[in-house]
Amino acid sequence: MKRGLFVGRFQPFHIGHVQVVKRLLKSVDELIIVVGSSQLSHELNNPFTAGERITMIRYALDEEGINPKQYHVIPVPDVTAHAVWVNQVIALTPSFSIVYSNEPLTRRLFKEAGFKVENVPFYHRETYSATEVRKRILNDGGWEELLPKSVAEYIKRMDGVSRIRELAVSDTT
Amino acid sequence: MKRGLFVGRFQPFHIGHVQVVKRLLKSVDELIIVVGSSQLSHELNNPFTAGERITMIRYALDEEGINPKQYHVIPVPDVTAHAVWVNQVIALTPSFSIVYSNEPLTRRLFKEAGFKVENVPFYHRETYSATEVRKRILNDGGWEELLPKSVAEYIKRMDGVSRIRELAVSDTT
Amino acid sequence: MKRGLFVGRFQPFHIGHVQVVKRLLKSVDELIIVVGSSQLSHELNNPFTAGERITMIRYALDEEGINPKQYHVIPVPDVTAHAVWVNQVIALTPSFSIVYSNEPLTRRLFKEAGFKVENVPFYHRETYSATEVRKRILNDGGWEELLPKSVAEYIKRMDGVSRIRELAVSDTT
Amino acid sequence: MKRGLFVGRFQPFHIGHVQVVKRLLKSVDELIIVVGSSQLSHELNNPFTAGERITMIRYALDEEGINPKQYHVIPVPDVTAHAVWVNQVIALTPSFSIVYSNEPLTRRLFKEAGFKVENVPFYHRETYSATEVRKRILNDGGWEELLPKSVAEYIKRMDGVSRIRELAVSDTT
Amino acid sequence: MKRGLFVGRFQPFHIGHVQVVKRLLKSVDELIIVVGSSQLSHELNNPFTAGERITMIRYALDEEGINPKQYHVIPVPDVTAHAVWVNQVIALTPSFSIVYSNEPLTRRLFKEAGFKVENVPFYHRETYSATEVRKRILNDGGWEELLPKSVAEYIKRMDGVSRIRELAVSDTT
Amino acid sequence: MKRGLFVGRFQPFHIGHVQVVKRLLKSVDELIIVVGSSQLSHELNNPFTAGERITMIRYALDEEGINPKQYHVIPVPDVTAHAVWVNQVIALTPSFSIVYSNEPLTRRLFKEAGFKVENVPFYHRETYSATEVRKRILNDGGWEELLPKSVAEYIKRMDGVSRIRELAVSDTT
Repeated sequence: MKRGLFVGRFQPFHIGHVQVVKRLLKSVDELIIVVGSSQLSHELNNPFTAGERITMIRYALDEEGINPKQYHVIPVPDVTAHAVWVNQVIALTPSFSIVYSNEPLTRRLFKEAGFKVENVPFYHRETYSATEVRKRILNDGGWEELLPKSVAEYIKRMDGVSRIRELAVSDTT
Repeated sequence: MKRGLFVGRFQPFHIGHVQVVKRLLKSVDELIIVVGSSQLSHELNNPFTAGERITMIRYALDEEGINPKQYHVIPVPDVTAHAVWVNQVIALTPSFSIVYSNEPLTRRLFKEAGFKVENVPFYHRETYSATEVRKRILNDGGWEELLPKSVAEYIKRMDGVSRIRELAVSDTT
Repeated sequence: MKRGLFVGRFQPFHIGHVQVVKRLLKSVDELIIVVGSSQLSHELNNPFTAGERITMIRYALDEEGINPKQYHVIPVPDVTAHAVWVNQVIALTPSFSIVYSNEPLTRRLFKEAGFKVENVPFYHRETYSATEVRKRILNDGGWEELLPKSVAEYIKRMDGVSRIRELAVSDTT
Repeated sequence: MKRGLFVGRFQPFHIGHVQVVKRLLKSVDELIIVVGSSQLSHELNNPFTAGERITMIRYALDEEGINPKQYHVIPVPDVTAHAVWVNQVIALTPSFSIVYSNEPLTRRLFKEAGFKVENVPFYHRETYSATEVRKRILNDGGWEELLPKSVAEYIKRMDGVSRIRELAVSDTT
Repeated sequence: MKRGLFVGRFQPFHIGHVQVVKRLLKSVDELIIVVGSSQLSHELNNPFTAGERITMIRYALDEEGINPKQYHVIPVPDVTAHAVWVNQVIALTPSFSIVYSNEPLTRRLFKEAGFKVENVPFYHRETYSATEVRKRILNDGGWEELLPKSVAEYIKRMDGVSRIRELAVSDTT
Repeated sequence: MKRGLFVGRFQPFHIGHVQVVKRLLKSVDELIIVVGSSQLSHELNNPFTAGERITMIRYALDEEGINPKQYHVIPVPDVTAHAVWVNQVIALTPSFSIVYSNEPLTRRLFKEAGFKVENVPFYHRETYSATEVRKRILNDGGWEELLPKSVAEYIKRMDGVSRIRELAVSDTT
């Protein structure tokens, strides 16, 4: 059985991520989705907790009809020393033989640890990006169309829109 | 939708745990299985990494034909202050309204945080316990019968038996 | 009895802070003054230790004749996960029912935890700000007038002026 | 001005502690009461949070009519390295010149750091001890008489009795 | 070039350790001496700081005429997760190909990471042990003969004897 | 015996550092070389692990014929509180009486702790700087001439050039 690892922060998990998961599932039997920087939340660039991001991923992949037998979703916090991060991932996940990432640090660390590393085939990256979603939420600009319907609804329901906007308020005026 | 939380260390995940999950799934729509003390491994009482325990849980529940749509498996490390542990669990998991645990500290902490807490209906606890499994592995005494077949095979395959036995060797002779 | 929480870094505690405390004490029976980011010191923006800041607060409020029965001063360090910060504050302080803060993150976190949050009625904020005090100390520009007399004397006595100036020196020339 | 440091865990703060504070206040102008192991709570030997202990201390000393101008109450967490603990205390407290403690590690660490260290003149230690209080709470044996009236009432009000008893329940039966 | 790793706590570094280093230097070109649990000190079983232990090692090996070009001495703290400890050692030391240890956990962790692991050829272990040295210091029983002369002198000079004895005093009488 | 402390990050250790060590060894009997920020690696500004930096220092000083009896090389990680950093250094190193550093924070912290602090006599600092070395490695511009021959060879051998270049790749195109 071939297991692959897909690392992201998923702030939030959007349609581009869904497409990546679908493509990667053609290459591996099982995909481990690592929710990276799991300790971060309530920041403009990292508004959602790991639990909220895990909820989004399940909603999004259920919506797409992807069988949860095919994947694991596992939160992994950052560590103070990059040099032990790969081993922390290994300790928290089922074993895997290939890593999918475009992030230079992640790629280099896994390569030095002897893993095969491949690029993630991103889907219309200029449009479907978490940065773009957060920007549109702030500016009230059609952010829902970048997300699976169930994720957009979840973000509204758990009050994510006002969280992001309140965090953006300046406290000096 | 009613989500419940089931906390354990699962060192290892045995037939008693499987029975508990089956019973709890009759009371909730979705169960969050928290792999507690996720940072621990390679100790006599905590031999397996969180990743290994997650692998066992998936094998065991697949073997039983339980649909993974019904549960989440999420590793949660200990924290230095008990007083913030519940909030760490909340931050790492989808939202939930009921907690299942027999552990006094876990029960008390969730009660103080306002959660409904119920006892876990353990299945033949004197026989099906992780302590008993580890003891039998050390003494070579029929440990496989306490585990789902797929978990017993996995422990052999990933060299878990010799890990436990080597950790038990005294270094003073 | 109504207890309120007032969170700040107080680098240093100035006349504006004294005025805020006086006003808040009209609304609550007891005020908990949280010395935030208590682990920080010896940085240009955070020059003073928590102990030094606690000393300043006591001097300033004594100078103003405020009875220490009316307040608590408690240092609270930052945590790696914002999602557990409120619970750390709760664990380190007497219980409280209202929070005073203008800082967006602090406000949002306490709101999500179910607390009543109100704005701090700052006093001539453009003049009485800790940033302004530190800038004037660096530039030797009449910083004492922004501080209670006892605090200004304490900063001189504990050598705070030279600490800030030495930390500002560039090491590349 | 002469400031002294009195270190304890105060689980809980009892009549013996009150007597110590009264005696020490005859030797110093100001006393810093360090609430040690501030991160611990919800354990049989450490049932109360730092915030709860701070609340007890204020109640107890108010009851005795001790002016809060004479003391500071400051929570200090344990650190992983004993060798830096004294410096953490220094960073979190107003400056002091003498330390009161009977605990061998605390005494040694402050001595090596050059501080004057004196024994605490305990008051009927065999009776007035926190260990005895916790034992009596568990066994329902007249624990209130070891505590200032206001502290005993507070412990009942914040549900401390049932916290201690629930933590003592075994989870294996 | 063949580099070996020798892990110990060296509380304190005694004649047995010196003999081990001499023997190991016959098998490798360079030896990395890891001062483990480097964060511990001022405990009865771990009385000396890492810096003090490093000082002892240099004194002892100088006394024996061993060229410091042949070894490195590197302090390594414990980590909360055993599963990343080997990688922390790797990150803090020059590269090595063989590990010498009798400690079951250390042996197992390095084996799982793919390293060759060999037993340490201890020298009269019943006599030359750090536990025995500490016991004799406590009981004033001829501890110096278990140590290189320079190490015994250093321990006296830096007041190690009284440190161990003071830490052993009970605080309940 | 007079021991001095020389603190740096040594990313990487270059000819300027070698010259500093040679000059300082004229003023002290023994030099403690602290490899600061030892937890950092795999970042553009901190590409090398502490172990790699220790390896470089030994190569460089061996190449120069400096006797390792004259120095210690000790990795020290950053701490969250500057106020305890000096004590962490003290706990990890042999005792010392003088500190050499040009870094304002390091200088100030050691001064407040009562140490004598002197400037490092840097050697052609505009040319021989670690920043310059890293820039030239990125741009392929004659970086080897800034390093001792053995260090340049080591960086090539352990694949340091491609590490730095891969870390500099943008992940957004």
